Amino acid sequence: MNVVILAAGMGKRMQSALPKVLHPLAGKPLLSHVIHTARGLSPSKLCVIYGHGGAAVLTHLEKEKQIPGTDISAALQEPQLGTGHAVMQALPVLDEAHPTLILYGDVPLTTASSLQRLVDAAGGDKLGILTVEQDDPFGLGRIIRNADGAIERIVEEKDATPEQRAIKEINSGIIVAPTRHLKKWLSALQNNNAQGEYYLTDIVAQAVTDGVPVVSAQPSGQWEVAGVNSKVQLAQLERIHQLNIAQALLEKGVTLMDPARIDVRGELICGRDVTIDVGCVFEGKVELADGVTVGAHSVLVNTKVGAGVNIKPFCHFEEAVVGAASQVGPYARLRPGTELGEDVHIGNFVEVKNSQIAAHSKANHLAYVGDATIGSKVNVGAGVITCNYDGANKFRTVIEDDAFIGSDCQLVAPVTVGRGATIGAGTTLTKDAPAEQLTLSRTKQMSLAGWKRPVKIKK
Amino acid sequence: MNVVILAAGMGKRMQSALPKVLHPLAGKPLLSHVIHTARGLSPSKLCVIYGHGGAAVLTHLEKEKQIPGTDISAALQEPQLGTGHAVMQALPVLDEAHPTLILYGDVPLTTASSLQRLVDAAGGDKLGILTVEQDDPFGLGRIIRNADGAIERIVEEKDATPEQRAIKEINSGIIVAPTRHLKKWLSALQNNNAQGEYYLTDIVAQAVTDGVPVVSAQPSGQWEVAGVNSKVQLAQLERIHQLNIAQALLEKGVTLMDPARIDVRGELICGRDVTIDVGCVFEGKVELADGVTVGAHSVLVNTKVGAGVNIKPFCHFEEAVVGAASQVGPYARLRPGTELGEDVHIGNFVEVKNSQIAAHSKANHLAYVGDATIGSKVNVGAGVITCNYDGANKFRTVIEDDAFIGSDCQLVAPVTVGRGATIGAGTTLTKDAPAEQLTLSRTKQMSLAGWKRPVKIKK
Amino acid sequence: MNVVILAAGMGKRMQSALPKVLHPLAGKPLLSHVIHTARGLSPSKLCVIYGHGGAAVLTHLEKEKQIPGTDISAALQEPQLGTGHAVMQALPVLDEAHPTLILYGDVPLTTASSLQRLVDAAGGDKLGILTVEQDDPFGLGRIIRNADGAIERIVEEKDATPEQRAIKEINSGIIVAPTRHLKKWLSALQNNNAQGEYYLTDIVAQAVTDGVPVVSAQPSGQWEVAGVNSKVQLAQLERIHQLNIAQALLEKGVTLMDPARIDVRGELICGRDVTIDVGCVFEGKVELADGVTVGAHSVLVNTKVGAGVNIKPFCHFEEAVVGAASQVGPYARLRPGTELGEDVHIGNFVEVKNSQIAAHSKANHLAYVGDATIGSKVNVGAGVITCNYDGANKFRTVIEDDAFIGSDCQLVAPVTVGRGATIGAGTTLTKDAPAEQLTLSRTKQMSLAGWKRPVKIKK
Repeated sequence: MNVVILAAGMGKRMQSALPKVLHPLAGKPLLSHVIHTARGLSPSKLCVIYGHGGAAVLTHLEKEKQIPGTDISAALQEPQLGTGHAVMQALPVLDEAHPTLILYGDVPLTTASSLQRLVDAAGGDKLGILTVEQDDPFGLGRIIRNADGAIERIVEEKDATPEQRAIKEINSGIIVAPTRHLKKWLSALQNNNAQGEYYLTDIVAQAVTDGVPVVSAQPSGQWEVAGVNSKVQLAQLERIHQLNIAQALLEKGVTLMDPARIDVRGELICGRDVTIDVGCVFEGKVELADGVTVGAHSVLVNTKVGAGVNIKPFCHFEEAVVGAASQVGPYARLRPGTELGEDVHIGNFVEVKNSQIAAHSKANHLAYVGDATIGSKVNVGAGVITCNYDGANKFRTVIEDDAFIGSDCQLVAPVTVGRGATIGAGTTLTKDAPAEQLTLSRTKQMSLAGWKRPVKIKK
Repeated sequence: MNVVILAAGMGKRMQSALPKVLHPLAGKPLLSHVIHTARGLSPSKLCVIYGHGGAAVLTHLEKEKQIPGTDISAALQEPQLGTGHAVMQALPVLDEAHPTLILYGDVPLTTASSLQRLVDAAGGDKLGILTVEQDDPFGLGRIIRNADGAIERIVEEKDATPEQRAIKEINSGIIVAPTRHLKKWLSALQNNNAQGEYYLTDIVAQAVTDGVPVVSAQPSGQWEVAGVNSKVQLAQLERIHQLNIAQALLEKGVTLMDPARIDVRGELICGRDVTIDVGCVFEGKVELADGVTVGAHSVLVNTKVGAGVNIKPFCHFEEAVVGAASQVGPYARLRPGTELGEDVHIGNFVEVKNSQIAAHSKANHLAYVGDATIGSKVNVGAGVITCNYDGANKFRTVIEDDAFIGSDCQLVAPVTVGRGATIGAGTTLTKDAPAEQLTLSRTKQMSLAGWKRPVKIKK
Repeated sequence: MNVVILAAGMGKRMQSALPKVLHPLAGKPLLSHVIHTARGLSPSKLCVIYGHGGAAVLTHLEKEKQIPGTDISAALQEPQLGTGHAVMQALPVLDEAHPTLILYGDVPLTTASSLQRLVDAAGGDKLGILTVEQDDPFGLGRIIRNADGAIERIVEEKDATPEQRAIKEINSGIIVAPTRHLKKWLSALQNNNAQGEYYLTDIVAQAVTDGVPVVSAQPSGQWEVAGVNSKVQLAQLERIHQLNIAQALLEKGVTLMDPARIDVRGELICGRDVTIDVGCVFEGKVELADGVTVGAHSVLVNTKVGAGVNIKPFCHFEEAVVGAASQVGPYARLRPGTELGEDVHIGNFVEVKNSQIAAHSKANHLAYVGDATIGSKVNVGAGVITCNYDGANKFRTVIEDDAFIGSDCQLVAPVTVGRGATIGAGTTLTKDAPAEQLTLSRTKQMSLAGWKRPVKIKK
């Protein structure tokens, strides 16, 4: 099959500098959703028609091409003279031996299974239209069927009789056609209408005239054919999509405290007995192994969490790996390159970046662990800071197994704390600390007996 | 026009020490919403009838008077003998040359345009009633119209026939009347009813008797005439209002990840291509310039954010100004008096208060910056604290351009760090640091070879 | 009355290692909800039928038994041959003098008042069925009534005529029966059906045959009889339950910024004029006294908050007591054992654990206060850390009234700061600090004039 995706529209109502088809839904451009679905059908040709915001669309297509799948070609529509005219731009690349499916870059949520049903219904010799029953069909092209139920034509709102206006089955615009017929029909399109445009819909009448059967398939919901023309519609589809995702998670056995308050912008893979509290956001690819609990209002991005991990509220993880049975949060931030071993504890107001922390180690309070390699059973005290940056270069801190870093120490990298070493509270560690010993930098404590407290200055 | 706002009710069902009309909706007292709307109509006189919680209402009116607009007079209703009696209290201040519009301090969401339509319909010589179709009109006064559609009278629930009860058009209570007629009608009101009260509604019958035409206008939704008598109703109106605000933001092109999870309590002004993630709260006047993204679960109060700023999740800003292209958060708190220049980075667990930070400077980790003036390209290390308070007075810290403050330093104000100075990690800076030099306070690091770790004490 | 709770089901669709009846709803196992409701009816006998996941259920019942109330017995159903068979297992413990009420461990939200109405309707000599009108009764047993409205029988979906299928009144499965009759009817049950099970429902036909009147009562909503067989249904009931709780809070006068965004998993007791912002979660027993405001996205667990306390956004309290008029947050974490006196201020990025802080004291910025006893009017500076753990033992820090602890001090416990003492910024306090004096450990500040900054290393 060939697939043509119309993505040339301006999207003026989006009120944005970004071309409409590049606006994200669930963290991914609308067009990417359609390309992903199209590729799922394994077409032989996939052509995207671009126009407004062409440079940005082409740049985006380069990214899409790097994802394995059907190769993507692009065809410019300039000027933009309607949907029929848009499809004409793709004709040179289409394979006549296979039918052509027309999709829309701003209709992101059509499922591959609905499209497959449509394609199957049309076979190689029929025109297929994805139609849907709309509660409020106002403004949409009505499907007119004859007494036998066969599709006779599509009537637009303005041309419809009152009886026709009462019809709730509408044309989604998504069609599949035998490619040779399609070429002929497109070449015969007229633009003698108010907008002076060539409408793809007009090929339906030609098919009927030519005796080509017109068949239909239906999606599982109106949302599958809903297009995005405004931020209002974008928000509506985002919500429908998120509720669909939540429903799918629940059906896989994930416990969601509120299906209306989870946002998944990418892929969320959950093991058994995973519980996700309210207000959590997942971006990119996130994996939660068996028995993970995610506390309220946490944000996880491209992160892998091991079995039995307890993530407390208000956590923020990005490109991190968390070992099994670890306890993290509340208010813990794991930045890219964080790798926690098993049973690691990261507590409140702790930031970890580009660091490996081995099993059973703890950093429970107000600490910054950056560019560090930390062994197992290490205790990183409250307020400890790895001074990884000298203003010009970044260096690593190494803390070996069983070390105890007292509160509020600064570890000035590059520096190594030996196995089993203890660093006294408040130490500025500028040289390596030997194993098993107590290392500290400390000044004598003294008290000033005659000292008077400052008093409030009169202004 | 004259406007009378009835605000004397007790609101017992609110179960609160606060008078009903002072309960906030979207962060502003119900009465303020009504006063704001009334002033939008540019009346010549504006009179608020107060009673229960009178002192608090009068105090609040003093604040309202300080906002430019129509002067506000207040009249005490004591005792409270019904809505008609309430309006009577305003008669001395009304201008007979203009009609009088009656509003309610607990009906916060009527729009100025609906009221204007009502006033226009009534002109100077007719009685106008704002009526609305209610799905469930139970308990409300039904609008009885004659065969020509003219309003004949209002029938209360208890007096209604079954046919009348089926009428869905109800009296909102909001009326506009020629003032001379109003005075006459009010003086003729009877209180021979179960409650012994004078009902404003009864003037409709008098208007019909006097041959004064009774006209109507309709609001755009039931919520425009919904009153608040309980916390249940307050919560319902809050949600309707917030969804209206979200819809308006979407229509202006703002991207909202979830229109049901944004709270705007004041004025939110957005540029182009602004994206707001779930769970954000905006209070007071907040301005977001072009291209700003606000991360999930952030709270912004009276804050101005420059173009292209990226606000990460869990931020809390209050009376702050954030320069263009800055990156803030997650978990950053900007307190009053914070002014960030362009491209400033404020990271996790950082608090800034009453400080100016110039372009390209950074404070990325666990720091307290208070009462400080920081130049450009300054690096404030992790754990740095400006010691601005000696227990009696507050002093300023000055950090000049290009300075580098090592981790965990305490800058004991008043103190100045010179241009290009470097402060060593862990330094307690009590005197000015000269430009370009390294300044530090550091003790020799030493290790104790024979030292033994503490052991667990048996209890 | 006797109560039998059927809790032997596997709950395969839950896709969990946890037996279905132990899945939490509002933080409490489904079975606990049913036991709590049953005990509210003061039955003489309460028997739980267990089977799948039996060990876990029995372990849980041990916990339930420790809560004062009717004693709980347990009976094993093994193998599981239907609901009728399940009830048979309880027969030995039932008191024949009283009727027996059959409940379900996976139907958590039936109210005691609905059950009491059912029991009252049945008296001691009738069979009572809790029936409910279902919008979509598909798959459920329909209640067939005769011309007089008396219940004649229950028809299952598969046996129902089209007319019967149109009946919306269905059998909830919750019944009460005279115990002697119940025994007889159960012993006569047949399992000649497709599943080979003994259905409790079949006793209805026997009752009719025996001339025992069959009566009914209705709950206030479908949710009262909704069962949990999947995570989808669990989430639906969780939301219904949470909205019910929110409604009850509103009716008691609590201000909720969004009733759809509050989660109460336990008991939330509110005084007058309490305001709760969006996204808050309450677990265990939480008490909020008069005038408390809880900021957005806060999580409170087993905590008691005094009058007039202002909790700012993003707080996390667990087993804490907060004194009246205190100000806490944003981003404050109070851990178990925290006791704050009156007018205590705990600010951003501050963690308090197992500590008492007396009236008017403050710890406003980035501090860790653990195992400390702090007097009144104490100022704990930014970055202060109580070093309560030496790697083996925990010790207490004592700070007496009026002390001022400078920024970034480490208080190495056990240590005492005397009344009115001042500790200089950056001090590592290892010995007691005398009252009224300034105590510090500080090294001379020095500057290196010839020093050159590090330069970027070429790689």
